[in-house]
Amino acid sequence: MNAPNPLSVPLDDPFGPHNLPYGVYSTAADPAPRIGVRYGGHVLDAGAAARAAGAPGQIVSLLSAPVLNPLLAAGRPVWTRVRAAVAEWLTAPEHAAAVAPLLVPLAQALPHLPFEVADYVDFYASEHHAANVGRIFRPDAADPLTANWKHLPIGYHGRAGTVVVSGSPVLRPCGQRRAAGEAAPSYGPSLRLDVEVELGFVVGGASPRGRRVAMAEADEHVFGVCLLNDWSARDIQAWEYVPLGPFLGKSFATSVSPWVVPLEALAHARTAPPPRDTPLLPYLDDAGVLPPCGLDIAMELRLNGHTVSRPPFASMYWTYAQMLAHLTVNGASLRPGDLFASGTVSGPRPEQVGALIELTHGGARPVELPDGSRRAFLEDGDEVVITAAAVGPGGVPVGLGEVAGRIEPAR
Amino acid sequence: MNAPNPLSVPLDDPFGPHNLPYGVYSTAADPAPRIGVRYGGHVLDAGAAARAAGAPGQIVSLLSAPVLNPLLAAGRPVWTRVRAAVAEWLTAPEHAAAVAPLLVPLAQALPHLPFEVADYVDFYASEHHAANVGRIFRPDAADPLTANWKHLPIGYHGRAGTVVVSGSPVLRPCGQRRAAGEAAPSYGPSLRLDVEVELGFVVGGASPRGRRVAMAEADEHVFGVCLLNDWSARDIQAWEYVPLGPFLGKSFATSVSPWVVPLEALAHARTAPPPRDTPLLPYLDDAGVLPPCGLDIAMELRLNGHTVSRPPFASMYWTYAQMLAHLTVNGASLRPGDLFASGTVSGPRPEQVGALIELTHGGARPVELPDGSRRAFLEDGDEVVITAAAVGPGGVPVGLGEVAGRIEPAR
Repeated sequence: MNAPNPLSVPLDDPFGPHNLPYGVYSTAADPAPRIGVRYGGHVLDAGAAARAAGAPGQIVSLLSAPVLNPLLAAGRPVWTRVRAAVAEWLTAPEHAAAVAPLLVPLAQALPHLPFEVADYVDFYASEHHAANVGRIFRPDAADPLTANWKHLPIGYHGRAGTVVVSGSPVLRPCGQRRAAGEAAPSYGPSLRLDVEVELGFVVGGASPRGRRVAMAEADEHVFGVCLLNDWSARDIQAWEYVPLGPFLGKSFATSVSPWVVPLEALAHARTAPPPRDTPLLPYLDDAGVLPPCGLDIAMELRLNGHTVSRPPFASMYWTYAQMLAHLTVNGASLRPGDLFASGTVSGPRPEQVGALIELTHGGARPVELPDGSRRAFLEDGDEVVITAAAVGPGGVPVGLGEVAGRIEPAR
Repeated sequence: MNAPNPLSVPLDDPFGPHNLPYGVYSTAADPAPRIGVRYGGHVLDAGAAARAAGAPGQIVSLLSAPVLNPLLAAGRPVWTRVRAAVAEWLTAPEHAAAVAPLLVPLAQALPHLPFEVADYVDFYASEHHAANVGRIFRPDAADPLTANWKHLPIGYHGRAGTVVVSGSPVLRPCGQRRAAGEAAPSYGPSLRLDVEVELGFVVGGASPRGRRVAMAEADEHVFGVCLLNDWSARDIQAWEYVPLGPFLGKSFATSVSPWVVPLEALAHARTAPPPRDTPLLPYLDDAGVLPPCGLDIAMELRLNGHTVSRPPFASMYWTYAQMLAHLTVNGASLRPGDLFASGTVSGPRPEQVGALIELTHGGARPVELPDGSRRAFLEDGDEVVITAAAVGPGGVPVGLGEVAGRIEPAR
């Protein structure tokens, strides 16, 4: 009996030929990391496929790298050519015999961080999240949003060196936190360890220092998207973050999904962002921008296998084009491998928030899991999985895969 | 008539054999960047010297790289061996004939960024600076220092991709800023462009995620120091920085000096930090730590050739060992090429502050230059130079060179 032909995937598979996300993987038999393209339940060895198909030298070279960065550096026209070539290798009958042996079952592919992260910026683009957190961190403020919030996408730099791939263990961080009513801080493992459900945008196509990247140019510089969990120690963050922002409360780990979904695969997910109720300066004014840069992506947060929230990315106030235009408006350069994230995705409803601090009202109302246990924040051994799917062509979703991590006890 | 032998430097030269800082340079005749060691008024081609001296293969290889990162990765024992070898090549008579042709006059050496910056963190370690700025940014607060300031060295991540070498032009950034009394922001070139006189600490010897680096281990991970100018657009910063910290007000450019002075060269500059008036948690408590990790370095800020301030690094409240211990206390990993900076160096006296915002009291009291012009903040065409020298052996200072930059008009 023959195994089913891996080159045919079900028509409704979220990883069909309309998706073709890139990652880096290795196998037990061949531990050298190499670029793969996920196709259904398999991963294509992209460099080997390029060689087998007799692709041009540039494509062979880009796909034979151990990370995506050379491909990211190549820019939009090359991305388009490579994507078309990969689709042809997987779907044109004349390539089937050569390509089939280059597909590895997903379960045998060990994921690696798909790209070397250059600079990592985290935004704060959900109005619902910013308002929910504002009420918790600044209960005495008249407006839960700061005065600047509706004028610019607030962001800050995070630690690129601790961005890790899905499945990497997350050690509970230690640090300073000050208990309510105490004058001095104490030291120890974080007692309020949290998640943040986010989307990450992977940048390619460098831009020089001094040059602004306009919103209309964003698609030339955004290669694709991944899922991102911005693990957050709320007690460490609350004590440290005034006046220079989050630091150790975030820098211990940031997890990303193994698969970077090309921006082209999200063409059907584009949607208008929420109405803007505050006039925007011209470099951020996206009224009438076509195609719109909101993205209709349904996200899901699971804690120990139980779905606790369904954040809708379409509810985000600021778009990736606005974030990128703002990031570079001061002349900051872009490098291949730059990563910017959306900030926590929270929708307007309680069951749509993307962080436990919102879901449990600052820990005051723990969630109950099906096993009867309750969680205000994460406990050692907890497993967090974020999944997502975007609106795709003909009703077939575009899978973004998952980003997973398990909490290990503090050392 | 022969040129003077470049192998002899005056006994009181701040770049004598007691210093030997590393950099990367090229020349008009040979544009390939390579590692150099500054010696008096010359630069030694370090890789060529290693080959000429018949050094072990590892040393040849590390010094033949186009950046310092492989040397940074090698760790403290190798740094010590390489430093001893370089000193021998420059001072032992048997090497003179082979080494002399490998010295390039400093004026012919074009400096490059000496290392690829992995993550860049900026601290806020001067009590005088934090208090001065606190009074300006938060005039209504009872205490100019935030409640956490004396308990931990506050820091935040900056943009690694816009760290540039001394001499690189600095374009005036554009962005959002809100004028006093206005409800909405406006867009345009920064009107309050400033400098920050800082010291940068260059990290080598990676540490894995999950492992804290104790203060006592700091010298195993700090390769050396450079001068750093953290250019700051105060108007952009003031509008954006609540609640997540500085972002575009800083990310357009950060300049570093071409020469990284090895930590060993600063042995005579070590001094006790100021007395601590607030008890510290054990991981930051440096009472009785020997050798002390304060550094007696005299810094100087020049604006268009005129010295406007002399910040004393010895006045810094937090030491580099405390900064590094704090940076990793949550398990954040270190990579070769990580850079952390002290934050603005300001002494207790008005003529010792390291930023114009302090020197001019938020712009209210401009400084007058010898040509009769006045500066509240930087104007286009202004040239800023920061220089410094550390206490060295036998009264001979250890030169840190300079970090320079000229302001170009906004594009």
